[in-house]
Amino acid sequence: MAQAQGGSGERVWTAGLVIIGDEILSGRTQDQNLAFLARWLNLQGIRLRKAEVVADDVAAIGRAVTSLLDAHDYVFTTGGIGPTHDDVTVEAVAAALGLPVVIHPEAEARLRAHYGDRLTPARLRMARVPQGAELIENPETGAPGIRLGRLFILAGVPRIMQGMLAGLDGRLEGGRPVASTTTGAWCPESSVADLLARIQEGFPEVQVGSYPFWRQRGDQLAVGANFVIRAADEAQLQAATQALRRALAACGIEPVEGEL
Amino acid sequence: MAQAQGGSGERVWTAGLVIIGDEILSGRTQDQNLAFLARWLNLQGIRLRKAEVVADDVAAIGRAVTSLLDAHDYVFTTGGIGPTHDDVTVEAVAAALGLPVVIHPEAEARLRAHYGDRLTPARLRMARVPQGAELIENPETGAPGIRLGRLFILAGVPRIMQGMLAGLDGRLEGGRPVASTTTGAWCPESSVADLLARIQEGFPEVQVGSYPFWRQRGDQLAVGANFVIRAADEAQLQAATQALRRALAACGIEPVEGEL
Repeated sequence: MAQAQGGSGERVWTAGLVIIGDEILSGRTQDQNLAFLARWLNLQGIRLRKAEVVADDVAAIGRAVTSLLDAHDYVFTTGGIGPTHDDVTVEAVAAALGLPVVIHPEAEARLRAHYGDRLTPARLRMARVPQGAELIENPETGAPGIRLGRLFILAGVPRIMQGMLAGLDGRLEGGRPVASTTTGAWCPESSVADLLARIQEGFPEVQVGSYPFWRQRGDQLAVGANFVIRAADEAQLQAATQALRRALAACGIEPVEGEL
Repeated sequence: MAQAQGGSGERVWTAGLVIIGDEILSGRTQDQNLAFLARWLNLQGIRLRKAEVVADDVAAIGRAVTSLLDAHDYVFTTGGIGPTHDDVTVEAVAAALGLPVVIHPEAEARLRAHYGDRLTPARLRMARVPQGAELIENPETGAPGIRLGRLFILAGVPRIMQGMLAGLDGRLEGGRPVASTTTGAWCPESSVADLLARIQEGFPEVQVGSYPFWRQRGDQLAVGANFVIRAADEAQLQAATQALRRALAACGIEPVEGEL
């Protein structure tokens, strides 16, 4: 596994995400988990570096999980851990990592407490884990998430996934949280492209992003952009942000603090 | 490139998508392009099989594009084709495919018509293409999309991306469009898991998906699920849907036509 480093030589902790589900790839369901996980990881000092969206397919899930584990400190999966035939994440991960699938006794006990004598074989599927896994608390419903070392297998339903993440808050080793500033401007990004490139060159430890927009205002199309600077180092972040805002003002463009 | 086949032996056309942008991986921006492209591809008779979300990074973009080209009929990218320093999609694709980057004369002419004497070197970056590429019409702004055989390089701003796709409507070879039915039920999906598995086994040419939900209703949490059946064959789709609805009713669960 590659250990990424930031510009300052400081260790950067990284994560990959596998989003599992035919409903995402068919366009039926709009994924919300990537953005939520990304922001949660930023607070833990971990950067989401890559995500893959795959079908409910054992081989595809296995390939995505193993390739992301090779290149990142942590890997998360969302989706495919329910009780139905299209929930194949546990068997896919187990097969990819060469582990048997076993019933986790504590997960079974929780499901038994939740369902009582309505604990059918289908429901018991939600107690299956790759051998050696720990459980992740699910405050919403009976079926827990699964941790296998640096791999975290979470639910696909956003509220349940978010409940599982809450239980992991502050428990993963990471670096400094990534902070950001946003500066808006009512100008085409193409008019300040050179200026942005100079700020990026002058502050190699920050990331400068430019996000243009076009908005209908009455019968006119108003053109603007938001410039986002991201960094783990607060002093660098503030210095780059001030340099950007001064440079915009020097070109006669009023910098707006925050997102337009 | 693997040629996928459906259960009937009919050729299935597939696509991969590379979503490019630090703003997606940082959680700042919620991607909307995957769901839109997926639904558009369904209408063209092409199935979105995999998507990868990568940073504004030449090597990461190149790896994603080449690996998806190896496994799918078509590959689409969104994002990173603007005029700023963080727009590196064209150079990433060109480097990955071993092609030089050239100025496309028609793209330059369009930008010149759009910007007149305000056509700066930064804006001229939007006329750069991998050698041999064709342009994709952009009805919204001056910068065109890029087609390189079965690779389509589109804008990241949803309205611009959608405008580019509109120009490709009906122009890509594909199979039969994938149609779907949705059946809702006010029951936990775990109570009908076996029933769903039997429908899937009985109709191997369709895909049966189960999507549970939990909704607050007054002070109660109501549990339900939507069952989605997808198929290219309309007769199979209808037969499987009717079988599912009959099976639910036989268990005393009222099937609701359409999404709950």
